[in-house]
Amino acid sequence: MALSVLILGSAAAAPTLNRNQTAQLVSTEKNLFLVDCGEATQIQLRRYKVRFQQIDHIFISHLHGDHFFGLVGLLSTMHMLGRKAAVHIYGPKELQEVIQVQFKYAGSSLSFQQVYHTVEGSSAPIYQDNEIEVTAFEVNHRIKCFGYKFQERPKPRRINGKRVEFYKVPNYFRPKLKEGADFTKEDGEVIANSVLTDAPFPSHAYAYCADSAAHEKYLKHIQGVDLLYHEATFMHDQKARAKKTYHSTAKQTGELAAKAGVGQLLIGHFSNRYTDLKPLLNEAKNGFKTTSLAVEGKTYTTDISKR
Amino acid sequence: MALSVLILGSAAAAPTLNRNQTAQLVSTEKNLFLVDCGEATQIQLRRYKVRFQQIDHIFISHLHGDHFFGLVGLLSTMHMLGRKAAVHIYGPKELQEVIQVQFKYAGSSLSFQQVYHTVEGSSAPIYQDNEIEVTAFEVNHRIKCFGYKFQERPKPRRINGKRVEFYKVPNYFRPKLKEGADFTKEDGEVIANSVLTDAPFPSHAYAYCADSAAHEKYLKHIQGVDLLYHEATFMHDQKARAKKTYHSTAKQTGELAAKAGVGQLLIGHFSNRYTDLKPLLNEAKNGFKTTSLAVEGKTYTTDISKR
Repeated sequence: MALSVLILGSAAAAPTLNRNQTAQLVSTEKNLFLVDCGEATQIQLRRYKVRFQQIDHIFISHLHGDHFFGLVGLLSTMHMLGRKAAVHIYGPKELQEVIQVQFKYAGSSLSFQQVYHTVEGSSAPIYQDNEIEVTAFEVNHRIKCFGYKFQERPKPRRINGKRVEFYKVPNYFRPKLKEGADFTKEDGEVIANSVLTDAPFPSHAYAYCADSAAHEKYLKHIQGVDLLYHEATFMHDQKARAKKTYHSTAKQTGELAAKAGVGQLLIGHFSNRYTDLKPLLNEAKNGFKTTSLAVEGKTYTTDISKR
Repeated sequence: MALSVLILGSAAAAPTLNRNQTAQLVSTEKNLFLVDCGEATQIQLRRYKVRFQQIDHIFISHLHGDHFFGLVGLLSTMHMLGRKAAVHIYGPKELQEVIQVQFKYAGSSLSFQQVYHTVEGSSAPIYQDNEIEVTAFEVNHRIKCFGYKFQERPKPRRINGKRVEFYKVPNYFRPKLKEGADFTKEDGEVIANSVLTDAPFPSHAYAYCADSAAHEKYLKHIQGVDLLYHEATFMHDQKARAKKTYHSTAKQTGELAAKAGVGQLLIGHFSNRYTDLKPLLNEAKNGFKTTSLAVEGKTYTTDISKR
């Protein structure tokens, strides 16, 4: 098991015919999470055959339009297709007003409940189930903007079938073994858990940072994640412009990924001035070798063996 | 000269990979008018290479999302591209609130002025210049919904060069001839205007009706127009559904066009249940022969000789 990320949009600011505004689908075994939702995200979801009625949680980074203009349309289409299950929406507190006013005059109410969760950037998880935990943290942009970290929960230890059979561990005790308990035989002999089980599969983490001028102040939140998405709007020759607009250059992003010691870096949110993205990739790679470009329709996974 | 209509979207309700939400570009010699603006209209404008910074007037029919969800994104992109000229936006009075709240938390103000004009459906023009006059009228939908009529202003009479020369009409008098004045020679003889000029070119009219359950109550507003766009969401076997949702069947639309004695009928706003649109066309044609399907990327003109 791993986390995977389908890129739905990779453009900064305005959409073009080649690149859409920011949106990503983060998949786990049990969840489909949508992260940001630029204009026409619902069309991109159709293009890549995502069953979008299965998205129950939507995370919005900030209130610049290229990250949320598509949300109202997606919700509207979910309604028209007869959705019943609630949709949970996470973002800055003003998001609810921005979305709901657009439905206010349509003369009908949605077929499902929208549940808004105000994100503050505290360390408490904003979502958790037995598979994953999502936390939000503030990045470094002109207006309040959140990054999101998707952390798989610790996985159970894996039962070693042969040893369990050898020591005649009864079936009822197996869940306890997964939790790490030692086993005491009827004659009183204690068999250490480490004999009966193998180490759990690793728990992966994915962190999403858009939009942000790369900065160490959120380093601790992205430290050591298996996969980091971070914007890289400009080449470094535009560093003055990046600074002014609170965006990152590819060089800065690569350097931040190196400091954070992540497994892989994925860069996106490319300025429309660039048609050829290779120079951005190369610039980021100078700072951090294991970097990829966010390509729309392509899926990236935290499992490094699948790269 | 004629009015022309570029179809940017022809889908009812949700967009699909093949059809976009409603939007049209109405062109005159001097104006580019945008009529409705569903999600991703800005992408459609790019696709069809429309210089959208030249659009100064945008008309929104009603506040169902498939007719306005793309407006905020278009305005936002106009801003990012440095627009200075004001944009005039016509629609129901709540439109201003719906759009402006989306910019409210972005932390920047637009580079140009948005001028909102509340449409009431009175007979007074909502826009006019020396070329065209636009009026709004209420159609027949679940919520308040306006049709728009684009009427070319009366054109000047055309000077007959040979006659003017023969009667030695001085140059300074020619503008008066265009307005219909007779010419009095120095010897007192009066030359009738009809001798010196030919009839003006005809003034064309285009009417746009979406969304609406076809009804005679707005017949007077569309009577005799050269080109009528009217929605035809369903086939007539879905007439109960059409009635309930205040939409039209293709049959009803064809019959209304016949009653209105229009030059041509253009149907659109097709339900996503239809992939093959020919049956809709045939059904409308039973009522009104000169009917076309609204095809995205295709331009329709009021000039019947160019069909």
